[in-house]
Amino acid sequence: MKAIQQVAFGLESLTLSEIPTPVPAPNEVLVKIEAAALNYLDVALATGTYSKELPLPRIPTSDGAGVVAAIGDQVSKWKVGDRVAIHYNQLWQYGHATPDTNYVRTGVTTPGLLAEYAVVPEYALVRTPANLTSVEAATLPVAGVTAWTGLMSYAKIQAGQTVLVQGTGGVSLFALQIALAAGARVIATSSHPDKLKKLQALGAHEVIDYKQYPNWHEEVRRLTNGAGVNATLDIAGAATIVNSVKSVGFNGFVGLVGFIAGPQLPVDLFSVVGSYIRLQGYSVGSLQSFQELALAVEANDIHPVIDSVFPVSEAQEAFKYMGSSNYFGKVVIEMK
Amino acid sequence: MKAIQQVAFGLESLTLSEIPTPVPAPNEVLVKIEAAALNYLDVALATGTYSKELPLPRIPTSDGAGVVAAIGDQVSKWKVGDRVAIHYNQLWQYGHATPDTNYVRTGVTTPGLLAEYAVVPEYALVRTPANLTSVEAATLPVAGVTAWTGLMSYAKIQAGQTVLVQGTGGVSLFALQIALAAGARVIATSSHPDKLKKLQALGAHEVIDYKQYPNWHEEVRRLTNGAGVNATLDIAGAATIVNSVKSVGFNGFVGLVGFIAGPQLPVDLFSVVGSYIRLQGYSVGSLQSFQELALAVEANDIHPVIDSVFPVSEAQEAFKYMGSSNYFGKVVIEMK
Amino acid sequence: MKAIQQVAFGLESLTLSEIPTPVPAPNEVLVKIEAAALNYLDVALATGTYSKELPLPRIPTSDGAGVVAAIGDQVSKWKVGDRVAIHYNQLWQYGHATPDTNYVRTGVTTPGLLAEYAVVPEYALVRTPANLTSVEAATLPVAGVTAWTGLMSYAKIQAGQTVLVQGTGGVSLFALQIALAAGARVIATSSHPDKLKKLQALGAHEVIDYKQYPNWHEEVRRLTNGAGVNATLDIAGAATIVNSVKSVGFNGFVGLVGFIAGPQLPVDLFSVVGSYIRLQGYSVGSLQSFQELALAVEANDIHPVIDSVFPVSEAQEAFKYMGSSNYFGKVVIEMK
Amino acid sequence: MKAIQQVAFGLESLTLSEIPTPVPAPNEVLVKIEAAALNYLDVALATGTYSKELPLPRIPTSDGAGVVAAIGDQVSKWKVGDRVAIHYNQLWQYGHATPDTNYVRTGVTTPGLLAEYAVVPEYALVRTPANLTSVEAATLPVAGVTAWTGLMSYAKIQAGQTVLVQGTGGVSLFALQIALAAGARVIATSSHPDKLKKLQALGAHEVIDYKQYPNWHEEVRRLTNGAGVNATLDIAGAATIVNSVKSVGFNGFVGLVGFIAGPQLPVDLFSVVGSYIRLQGYSVGSLQSFQELALAVEANDIHPVIDSVFPVSEAQEAFKYMGSSNYFGKVVIEMK
Repeated sequence: MKAIQQVAFGLESLTLSEIPTPVPAPNEVLVKIEAAALNYLDVALATGTYSKELPLPRIPTSDGAGVVAAIGDQVSKWKVGDRVAIHYNQLWQYGHATPDTNYVRTGVTTPGLLAEYAVVPEYALVRTPANLTSVEAATLPVAGVTAWTGLMSYAKIQAGQTVLVQGTGGVSLFALQIALAAGARVIATSSHPDKLKKLQALGAHEVIDYKQYPNWHEEVRRLTNGAGVNATLDIAGAATIVNSVKSVGFNGFVGLVGFIAGPQLPVDLFSVVGSYIRLQGYSVGSLQSFQELALAVEANDIHPVIDSVFPVSEAQEAFKYMGSSNYFGKVVIEMK
Repeated sequence: MKAIQQVAFGLESLTLSEIPTPVPAPNEVLVKIEAAALNYLDVALATGTYSKELPLPRIPTSDGAGVVAAIGDQVSKWKVGDRVAIHYNQLWQYGHATPDTNYVRTGVTTPGLLAEYAVVPEYALVRTPANLTSVEAATLPVAGVTAWTGLMSYAKIQAGQTVLVQGTGGVSLFALQIALAAGARVIATSSHPDKLKKLQALGAHEVIDYKQYPNWHEEVRRLTNGAGVNATLDIAGAATIVNSVKSVGFNGFVGLVGFIAGPQLPVDLFSVVGSYIRLQGYSVGSLQSFQELALAVEANDIHPVIDSVFPVSEAQEAFKYMGSSNYFGKVVIEMK
Repeated sequence: MKAIQQVAFGLESLTLSEIPTPVPAPNEVLVKIEAAALNYLDVALATGTYSKELPLPRIPTSDGAGVVAAIGDQVSKWKVGDRVAIHYNQLWQYGHATPDTNYVRTGVTTPGLLAEYAVVPEYALVRTPANLTSVEAATLPVAGVTAWTGLMSYAKIQAGQTVLVQGTGGVSLFALQIALAAGARVIATSSHPDKLKKLQALGAHEVIDYKQYPNWHEEVRRLTNGAGVNATLDIAGAATIVNSVKSVGFNGFVGLVGFIAGPQLPVDLFSVVGSYIRLQGYSVGSLQSFQELALAVEANDIHPVIDSVFPVSEAQEAFKYMGSSNYFGKVVIEMK
Repeated sequence: MKAIQQVAFGLESLTLSEIPTPVPAPNEVLVKIEAAALNYLDVALATGTYSKELPLPRIPTSDGAGVVAAIGDQVSKWKVGDRVAIHYNQLWQYGHATPDTNYVRTGVTTPGLLAEYAVVPEYALVRTPANLTSVEAATLPVAGVTAWTGLMSYAKIQAGQTVLVQGTGGVSLFALQIALAAGARVIATSSHPDKLKKLQALGAHEVIDYKQYPNWHEEVRRLTNGAGVNATLDIAGAATIVNSVKSVGFNGFVGLVGFIAGPQLPVDLFSVVGSYIRLQGYSVGSLQSFQELALAVEANDIHPVIDSVFPVSEAQEAFKYMGSSNYFGKVVIEMK
């Protein structure tokens, strides 16, 4: 089969190769991949900035969707032709994360999905929502599930509450769409006037230009009559946590999902204690969260925001573009 | 002031009278009532079928909304001119119900709201959602809060889940609107083809004619690919509980709110145990639930379904009509 | 290996036989069974009163504990010599039950544990608490986990709350011990004066002779200054549900676990609605619940109440005794 | 009546004075104070290090207990002779904190309790557990409720879980006693060998000398087979937060209650995200939490740890001793 192989660290080392098609063992499913979506982690893994320990060569990307092409012995949940997306934390099925559930991560500890075929345990698949193409469904496993886990599984946002979404990366745009589907008010931030317009077009009730308002939490307070929002997902970490904490109101929720701006958070203790704020670290989510997200996507006809779709022959360009931070929505690579 | 007074049991004894306008004590608010909505309980109280013990004369109705006309000493939360709706379980403010929180119920243990003015403790008011008229807001305190408490406070329904709403009374129509705002799929039942059409017009994804399908739980199962719904509010009690239980799926929720069909529920133990079903009795809700509902109503521009609006001079007709069960949505009496 | 085989329905058909020792497949563990405990279901299955459909011959019993004797390929969690107990709902690992999680039940859909050896998937074992013998640990999987799931996973009882335990079967005695470990007050019922004394010796704060007080909920109310208890597990179903509901107070919890007295529950709607009571059907519990129970058993040095221990050569007598209802605590069969 | 009055900032300005006995208004209760307990905040308020804005003269201390001496009109919950303790966040009754619930804090925004009598709203009292003296009960409102809220209301610790308590201040010792009552394992830290022995005598399963082990989280990991604890309350803030976060395991809980070591927390993002840790800011708790604590104290016969009891004539000495940090348990002033 055709596959992108990373033969050395550096984006220029992503190489379209011909390798053996894998064969599903018992309880495994062979998925014909139709699309793979990129996350910032994929770039960090490919360039080696995340770690130089990864064994090479490897097939990159964690996000993907396609069609069941063959099933191994004893597979009972899937049949050839089923449209599926691949779960990221494969062993995190239901309930809480445990130390065990982090051992297997699609595209990190297993071969990635930038290939014609991938073999996946039957328990690590979710049925593709009927309203989505595979290009759209490929964006759900990491960014979509991360947004769902934060807002729904942890923060349990309700209709009528207010959610702050920060920037226009994949997680934040899913957070916007999920919050709207759940009946919440949404305040969204960006530094680009054209992106602010797109956020409004997606349904954001209010937008804030954080370049214009470096103390954007003050705008958040103003737009909520001083109350602050009920929940936000903090993507950038050290660069935004102070404002994130000042943006949420009493009993507010700050989901900590990002490492972009360094490993130490300078948390303002007076705000956190005085407003009974919850800071919750987490990463992606369980199969149950993914299944719940898929139901919500279908019931509310949510279509993930796609910035651009590259053919597999232009995978290097896709990775470079992903590293540019100049996108609005997900960058997807189609396997054709 | 003008007020409807019930001087004896029987709807013909509801009399438009002139009585002294009440004066707010410290921490109390005088509300100019603009509209009062009827619930089935109001008819049962007025006819005496609920109890003959109620001291007469009394002013009926529990549901109402209007404008703050005067405030007592030490009132800090409200000012003259504020648009407000009156909370039913006045002492149930936050968290769980307690034996104490049932002692005071608007229009049952206090004078009702079918009058030009009513005096209410300042803690028993909710700001009227900006998108609603007082006629609309008058329908929220009992029916709206009952639906919210069941679906949101207890069942915690999520976007993508499926909710079954039974019939076209006030609680069920609010349940439909709340479930839709929260991103859920809704299956609705009625025995009238024209009401089924109205339910679809309100957004119900699926409807079932329960006269045509006496075993309507089978239709519910068919429409959910056998899975059953996540939650339903059982309004009729003994007449519907067997089908309600068979309609909800694994870990399903059945809210028990109704007494219409008698005091004993014949619950099928095998279904309840085998499917891990929760049966939850409750009644109306807390101030917090009402505040949450008001936020959701405003954020999602929900407009309560009004069947008809009567002038106060036709209060008797309004009560008789309420007793007929022939309505779709709330019956409201306007105080003019 | 030696095993008890049921060759026909009827307790007299339980036969000590010599059959091939099973061999663990990949991801499976061979457990040398040291003890198996009986539940009422085992008697119903053996006599055929539960169902005549069960394929025979079969090895009975769902509850057991022992020592890892061999491991299949790829087993990473266990090694030879580990002391383990076997999980009942093998596929119910974490979080909520789903339709899938009921498909595999130890000793019902798989060979039972009344044998020298049993093969179990590596994910369906729990480490035996260090303070327990295998005879004691064999009692945990069904009765212990059922009590834990009801009181801790669902009712979430807290220190200082009051729990009612009904009768002296395995589930109720575990409920008593778990409630005490969690700092709750316990009221216990029985119809035998000597059993009431044993309940007090186990730590019950109050006991009620339900033969003396057929309306024992009135005693429960008296002993709680009218408040009622926070939670109870209803074992007998139709025979006790009316009193169970009247025994729990505001926001009270009634776990529905038993079928003994017939399939239909006559639930008093006024009590359930008026006191905001939750009725929760469920069955046994997840691996997570079992792991939590094991930690609690060890940290609090809980020793399951053993009524009697039979050698495997007297398995028929053990089953007959189990059917007699004349025990106090668990009936265990030792595999020697 | 006699009262300690603070006439200027500085502990030497705490003066035993004769002032008018207050009179209960409607819905208020006059409590004859029998004992008042000190918290670190009392010292900071008295010395002026917390704020110089407090209007003087004032009666200090937030914690107290005594006997109802008189009741105002309309008081229905209490009668003369009832033994009561005074609630701190008087308006925080049930459910979540809101901005409103922080407006009234006993001894901060109201006159304190270091006096023969105090007037309190009837809703801001809790019945003294029958097993406690007033000296003991006086320690519950701030330190006891803070520990309860963190471990039980937020972290929801279960029997068999492990809790880390840091140091020997009032909150930590209550946390130890509550955790033990709830069936948890407790690891406790101190820098004094004699205090470590006292912690063991109180029931701590393990103790750590944090002077000997500056990286005490490594000891915590060792004592939990690498798993980390389920919950801890961080009292010192910046000085301990790094180790606190490294001490809790997957899905662990860190309650943030202290300001002792400065206003900014240097939180290790990798640990928090990688282990799905919750950091929860909060302060003291609701009336419901206090009522729950009182039930647990009585049911488990918990006796608060009293370091020393001073007569009111030696109030200055008590405050100075409280400032010394050299105590083990609560410092109480008896009103005689």
